[in-house]
Amino acid sequence: MFREKIKVFDCTIRDGGLINNHDFDDRFVREVYKALSAAGVDYMEIGYKNSKKLFSQKDFGKWKFCDDDHIRKIIDGIESKTKISVMVDVDRVDIEDVLPRKESPVHMVRVASYVKDIDKAIFLVNHFADKGYETTVNIMAISRALDNELNEALHQLEEECKADVIYLVDSFGALYQESIEFLVKKFKSILKSKEVGIHAHNNQQLAFGNTIEAIIHDANFVDGTVYGLGRAAGNCPLELLIGFLKNPKFDIRPILDLISNEFIPLRNKIEWGYIIPYAITGILDEHPKAAMVLRNSAKKENYREFYESLVGEELD
Amino acid sequence: MFREKIKVFDCTIRDGGLINNHDFDDRFVREVYKALSAAGVDYMEIGYKNSKKLFSQKDFGKWKFCDDDHIRKIIDGIESKTKISVMVDVDRVDIEDVLPRKESPVHMVRVASYVKDIDKAIFLVNHFADKGYETTVNIMAISRALDNELNEALHQLEEECKADVIYLVDSFGALYQESIEFLVKKFKSILKSKEVGIHAHNNQQLAFGNTIEAIIHDANFVDGTVYGLGRAAGNCPLELLIGFLKNPKFDIRPILDLISNEFIPLRNKIEWGYIIPYAITGILDEHPKAAMVLRNSAKKENYREFYESLVGEELD
Repeated sequence: MFREKIKVFDCTIRDGGLINNHDFDDRFVREVYKALSAAGVDYMEIGYKNSKKLFSQKDFGKWKFCDDDHIRKIIDGIESKTKISVMVDVDRVDIEDVLPRKESPVHMVRVASYVKDIDKAIFLVNHFADKGYETTVNIMAISRALDNELNEALHQLEEECKADVIYLVDSFGALYQESIEFLVKKFKSILKSKEVGIHAHNNQQLAFGNTIEAIIHDANFVDGTVYGLGRAAGNCPLELLIGFLKNPKFDIRPILDLISNEFIPLRNKIEWGYIIPYAITGILDEHPKAAMVLRNSAKKENYREFYESLVGEELD
Repeated sequence: MFREKIKVFDCTIRDGGLINNHDFDDRFVREVYKALSAAGVDYMEIGYKNSKKLFSQKDFGKWKFCDDDHIRKIIDGIESKTKISVMVDVDRVDIEDVLPRKESPVHMVRVASYVKDIDKAIFLVNHFADKGYETTVNIMAISRALDNELNEALHQLEEECKADVIYLVDSFGALYQESIEFLVKKFKSILKSKEVGIHAHNNQQLAFGNTIEAIIHDANFVDGTVYGLGRAAGNCPLELLIGFLKNPKFDIRPILDLISNEFIPLRNKIEWGYIIPYAITGILDEHPKAAMVLRNSAKKENYREFYESLVGEELD
């Protein structure tokens, strides 16, 4: 697949940070930035811009806050065309922490929002856009969105919001490609002035397949992470995306080196990927948090009991 | 997805046997048969029917030969509607080893063939069909098939062959869903009197997604293996297929137990799954054998050198 407008967006450090409280050391983050730059990846999301009033710097690593000076240390001296992104959650950011674009090493701010919070997301995005940033709105938990509410939100985004890209986020790794097709077509039909993006989770080994499906239906921003790193089942493997896209600007080899040298050792320290309890939450369209608790317990391989506990919950 | 005609076909022991010389012990194979039976899986392929003149019983386990008496020991006393299948390779079977259906515990014989060997495959299938078996032809390495040769083979299969089902086999895990759609539509358009099946390999984490794609375009025989077990990158995980299909006859829980009790321990003994050298051979549309050699060497994590060795081969 060659379409020049397709942008590959890496969120290894940002989404991977959800496993280790955003506590990657500088050397590791620099190695990721170096490899992404050499591979021709368009964007690297380095973490969250969270309020230090809400979260303690004692409890979390620096990539939960993404101070501009910390980012400068990572990128300093590395030749790169890769743009830097930070993510912002509705209700968790101090907007004054985000300086005007020309005073910051950050190029893009992505606002993560549920459908119900779309007004807050639009306020934030317009603020950051006015400060000079590229912006996106990432609509989380899209598999749970009611169609009428989603339609209204998309119309608001088209009419009131300065975001360049609107993402659909399959937070639970629950969607099959028929629903990806349905949603991307809906997004494209309403968001006539914007690009559409996809952020897929890999609970059912569908993150890559669903990303291809979104590309087929004209999504141009595609998220991936190196070796699929990310909370719980992880994300679309970046190396597969680069293998699929035929734009000659991409080079898979620096990513292969990065996996050999950094991610194979990392996998012995933290867990992510195709693990049955995460597959179960994906099949059931549930947040993975119950599975994450299970994986930290002595019952981590007791899949039947876990499955039955979820399907046996009280019905309303 | 609910379509009553969809048949779930397990090939855990047959494809998994390619990792361990078909040497699963009876207890393990019985546990698999028990779980598949309780889960409502339609078929279980238990191994190959290979000629003992070509392969020594000293070098291989019993599931390379699948004697009827060995199969009877596995299924004896277990309540089941799951049918038993064996696979036959062109040029490797003694047809007299296959008794008439009514004298055998086997229900189905599947013949694996390259496009070039389709005449031999048709001869074998017609022979086994005449002996009373359900039959299939599994066209291997479909990602390398020339379109004119494939068209001719499909017409021959439609006109001369008694097989109930014709499979497309993505042996190298190389296909993206656009090609799956193309091929399944082609198969359906020519094979008007037969069902279409898909057997996908998981090099690029697309086995499940591509199987869904094939189902969308009316393939009704879908292969999977428990926890994706199979040579190299393995196959479509059966548990995901059962989670996807909505036919109430399926029950995922016996498969979850089987993974907990048998496959998590097995994974510490043999290797399969998403492993970068297999992803590379998939991306490059190559047989995984070079990657299998690499994984048994000291350079097993040296991905860049492996990639460069493949793309650097002499061109004609």
